[in-house]
Amino acid sequence: MTTRITELFQIRYPVIQAGMVWVSGWRLAAAVSKAGGLGLIGAGSMKPDLLREHIRKARAATSAPLGVNIPLLRGDSEDLVRATVEEGIRIVFTSAGHPGKYLPLLKDAGCIVAHVVPSLKHAKKVEQVGCDAVVAEGFEAGGHNGFEETTTFCLLPQVADAVSIPVIAAGGIADGRQMAAALALGADGVQIGTLFAAAEESSAHEVFKQQIVEAGDGATVLTMKKIAPVRLIRTPFALRSVEAEARGADPGELRELLGSKREMRGMFEGDLEEGEFEAGQCAALVSDVRPAADIISDLMRQYLQTLERMADGAS
Amino acid sequence: MTTRITELFQIRYPVIQAGMVWVSGWRLAAAVSKAGGLGLIGAGSMKPDLLREHIRKARAATSAPLGVNIPLLRGDSEDLVRATVEEGIRIVFTSAGHPGKYLPLLKDAGCIVAHVVPSLKHAKKVEQVGCDAVVAEGFEAGGHNGFEETTTFCLLPQVADAVSIPVIAAGGIADGRQMAAALALGADGVQIGTLFAAAEESSAHEVFKQQIVEAGDGATVLTMKKIAPVRLIRTPFALRSVEAEARGADPGELRELLGSKREMRGMFEGDLEEGEFEAGQCAALVSDVRPAADIISDLMRQYLQTLERMADGAS
Repeated sequence: MTTRITELFQIRYPVIQAGMVWVSGWRLAAAVSKAGGLGLIGAGSMKPDLLREHIRKARAATSAPLGVNIPLLRGDSEDLVRATVEEGIRIVFTSAGHPGKYLPLLKDAGCIVAHVVPSLKHAKKVEQVGCDAVVAEGFEAGGHNGFEETTTFCLLPQVADAVSIPVIAAGGIADGRQMAAALALGADGVQIGTLFAAAEESSAHEVFKQQIVEAGDGATVLTMKKIAPVRLIRTPFALRSVEAEARGADPGELRELLGSKREMRGMFEGDLEEGEFEAGQCAALVSDVRPAADIISDLMRQYLQTLERMADGAS
Repeated sequence: MTTRITELFQIRYPVIQAGMVWVSGWRLAAAVSKAGGLGLIGAGSMKPDLLREHIRKARAATSAPLGVNIPLLRGDSEDLVRATVEEGIRIVFTSAGHPGKYLPLLKDAGCIVAHVVPSLKHAKKVEQVGCDAVVAEGFEAGGHNGFEETTTFCLLPQVADAVSIPVIAAGGIADGRQMAAALALGADGVQIGTLFAAAEESSAHEVFKQQIVEAGDGATVLTMKKIAPVRLIRTPFALRSVEAEARGADPGELRELLGSKREMRGMFEGDLEEGEFEAGQCAALVSDVRPAADIISDLMRQYLQTLERMADGAS
């Protein structure tokens, strides 16, 4: 299978595993890359030295293409960028910040750079500053999200029409039908988070993996909309946040309620009461914990079945 | 092109024009049905006698299959149902209420009945009570919407897995790529609102049609969430509603703010200040006012192009 994304990253399948905080360390990223996708180490929950360790371990586990995701709003994001480049990584996904922030540094080092956006306006910016690809992420995505609330279904065609760089769809993709739909909408590849968070090789706490597996329709909610919208599983903390918003809590109160380290407490430590569990609406379609390689082969099988079904229907 | 939906309704293309209040009278419905889709007269903004008139005019304009949409929460919904059946209509889409409410009456009259839902739970109910098809409508849809906020991308595969009756996708469909995506997700057909609201034959006010044509990414917002969530174009009234919600307005205050007749004032009379303009996120993909027949032929052309593009990419 060949798309602009398989060509850009020199990978077998146009499937990218999102670089998620607390969830995607070297084990998951290496397993995905080995299986023909593109694994991303999530630097957002790592100090630069820990990131270096993860990159080295992933490199030792596979020689396949491999990348790092770096959220640009972190105070030490420049250190993360330098560590990534110095450790020999040449594929970088940036998010949560200005896409041009470290672009000269990354391009000088020979990196391919993609940036994650939630809206058409931001997608145009990504192309304008000179990134190589754009990840367009819809409202249904887990974790941090945009203010426009544009869904994958409506965002992708707009972005595909507006930019000439390759487009990666994110948000709502947990099976091969959704992968086919993303490509129909104009994407050249998909970025998948929640489904891989529940993979065997993910460093998510077992409690988080079970939350994903058990999630049904309506199990997640977008909250903290006045400070930084985030999609969470409806655990007790998320419901407290929703309740505070409903009575009109201001940004200050929401920030206080949020406090700190909730992502770690939830996704990494499994604290159901106080933690945050970032997952997309498509958690409803994840029914078990499997090795990343099985996830990818199932995805591709169902993707091809979907194309066949559609070709039959068209006649 | 053959799907379970073309077979169920005996139509050429699996394209259904949503029965919208103030927008879809006999002219639009007849034009869509003539062009090979299924046109629905929107009874939600009509008294029974006016509905009879619209059905007769549509019947005079075309002998093609034709339906009526009836919102079940209206006080006189039974009169609308009786008028529909007495005028010889045999395709009925119900929405906003319990799907079984008039089902015996409709089935006794020989009707094919579809019901519109925003969630998996409701979709299962639709099958259980004995409807012939289910319309699964995502968060991106214009007008009234569910509390779960499940997007088309995540709702469709869940519904397709859970029910054995034919599934119609709604919400976010304004071009052939999105139609292909909907079918990839497991739908047997699509219901399209916003794109047809801007059709030449729609009875929407010119101001509303222009609002749709000019809408870009982020132009709509889901509001009135504490009483009856509705997606509106961000006109002054919608923004006042959003502002009230942000400061925690309770259901009573929202009901008072909403008042009455805002749908008519907006969509039918073009009152930009005080009216409601119900449109989906995919308004961003609607760029002109065209005859319904052109809309359908463009949809089908782009749909088939999308299948070809995908088949090429899969090799």
